[in-house]
Amino acid sequence: MFTGLSAFPLTPFVDDAVDESAYAGLIERLAAAGVDSITALGSTGSYAYLGPEERARVARLAVAHAGTTPVHVGVGALRTSHVLDHVRSAEAAGAAGVLLAPMTYQPLTDDDVFELFAAVTGATQLPVIVYDNPGTTHFAFSTELYGRIAQLPRIASVKIPALPADAAAAADRMARIRAVLPEHVTVGISGDAFAAAGLAAGCDAWYSVIAGTLPQTALRILRAARSGDAEAGIRESDALQPLWRLFSTMGGSLRVTAAIAEHLGLVRRGSLPLPILGLTEAQRAEVARVADELGLDG
Amino acid sequence: MFTGLSAFPLTPFVDDAVDESAYAGLIERLAAAGVDSITALGSTGSYAYLGPEERARVARLAVAHAGTTPVHVGVGALRTSHVLDHVRSAEAAGAAGVLLAPMTYQPLTDDDVFELFAAVTGATQLPVIVYDNPGTTHFAFSTELYGRIAQLPRIASVKIPALPADAAAAADRMARIRAVLPEHVTVGISGDAFAAAGLAAGCDAWYSVIAGTLPQTALRILRAARSGDAEAGIRESDALQPLWRLFSTMGGSLRVTAAIAEHLGLVRRGSLPLPILGLTEAQRAEVARVADELGLDG
Repeated sequence: MFTGLSAFPLTPFVDDAVDESAYAGLIERLAAAGVDSITALGSTGSYAYLGPEERARVARLAVAHAGTTPVHVGVGALRTSHVLDHVRSAEAAGAAGVLLAPMTYQPLTDDDVFELFAAVTGATQLPVIVYDNPGTTHFAFSTELYGRIAQLPRIASVKIPALPADAAAAADRMARIRAVLPEHVTVGISGDAFAAAGLAAGCDAWYSVIAGTLPQTALRILRAARSGDAEAGIRESDALQPLWRLFSTMGGSLRVTAAIAEHLGLVRRGSLPLPILGLTEAQRAEVARVADELGLDG
Repeated sequence: MFTGLSAFPLTPFVDDAVDESAYAGLIERLAAAGVDSITALGSTGSYAYLGPEERARVARLAVAHAGTTPVHVGVGALRTSHVLDHVRSAEAAGAAGVLLAPMTYQPLTDDDVFELFAAVTGATQLPVIVYDNPGTTHFAFSTELYGRIAQLPRIASVKIPALPADAAAAADRMARIRAVLPEHVTVGISGDAFAAAGLAAGCDAWYSVIAGTLPQTALRILRAARSGDAEAGIRESDALQPLWRLFSTMGGSLRVTAAIAEHLGLVRRGSLPLPILGLTEAQRAEVARVADELGLDG
């Protein structure tokens, strides 16, 4: 359940409310594609922007439309008690696991973050994915802190940021991470542009932004990576270089992925929560051109 | 109203709820000390950690206990519609102005932030303080963006981070900021350790963390800075070097200020919202020692 491809769907908005029918459609599309799990309310699912009732509702929708595909639910918040509220609503929705990033406003210490995970693992029977996303949380996990947190009960997986580009350095980093984790804790790569390299370096899972919108495309990369030819996944991924370039030049994966989903008609225009305006007209045209050229439609 | 000393009180917690009687006491202490304004629910007031009902309640408490001292209320949130909710509750509470920092989870563009301020200034008659706090928001305002936003109606003040340490460089920076702001928009310094230097460089206001807990101490610095002797404020501030050193070595002003307030009995132990554990025992002992040595009690 914490291996293979986990797809992170957008939570589409329309007029500042969750577009529930579009969201249900995204979830059904992921289940039909055969992803290994769905992670609702990840960063791509704009969890940080939703109120508690919206989050509970989105969690229920995701489980209701995912069929037999397990659904993990992001429960992060700035305040511990709010995190625990989200854990309870994820449990009530029927989540298979929860994903927790240490959101920050005031910088947090390692002890703050450890105690946050201790509070959550002490309050639920659900497995917990440790979500290390320094680009949004501005919290930097040390490898030692991975190890401390992974000793807690119910820690199932660690979602790590991109590994070093050099393969030997990536393998070394993976070995250092594995050395601090109990055997039952999986390691999942994120940062789609470098995910194939992460899988080649031995990651068990891919926590994927584009899989939430383009599941077939992501599954092609995953299957190639798992084919026995270590380079095959990287070749499939490299074929998407024009897409990865958009991620790096247009302010990250979220705005580009939302523009692709809008271009494909999966969600309505203006699908991101304000104040995020999304891409400019010129950027959208460029995204549409790249998506069409690469045949990104599934 | 947007000049002089604005004191930023803590919002003290007890058992994960706002300690309302302690908060009322903090506000009354500030009003009695004669600060020029009180800014409730600033970063020091943990605004980012409070739910909408808590924020509405804290805003009402602040106004109710401030007497004739004007109260500004922090209204920042990750989502524009939540910001607008907080603006409405600040208005209903009787706020004299609102303070808005562009909180981020996903990085924001200049256009995102401009439109956020446009939405707020279009939705209220209250004056608005632009809150530039890159250490917590991770959004970097350009001087040009100050200017764009300051053209909006109702922008009253810009709260800037510390100026360069060199006096000539600070004066140059101030001149560049003034050049983009309409005359009616004041500039307020933050970063208490360097506030006296900011006042010497011509800032109209000091948006102060320590003034929320030690208003007399902050007023001494402000009055010295305004005495006609440009260096007098800096001398008063320099006398507090041991305190400023704690700010820089103990992870910022919030945890230290909370420990001082706890040491003085103004708030109860564990006054910060979890997951922020606050200082360790050894750090608290050091803070208490410095506070006692400097005579920091008012």
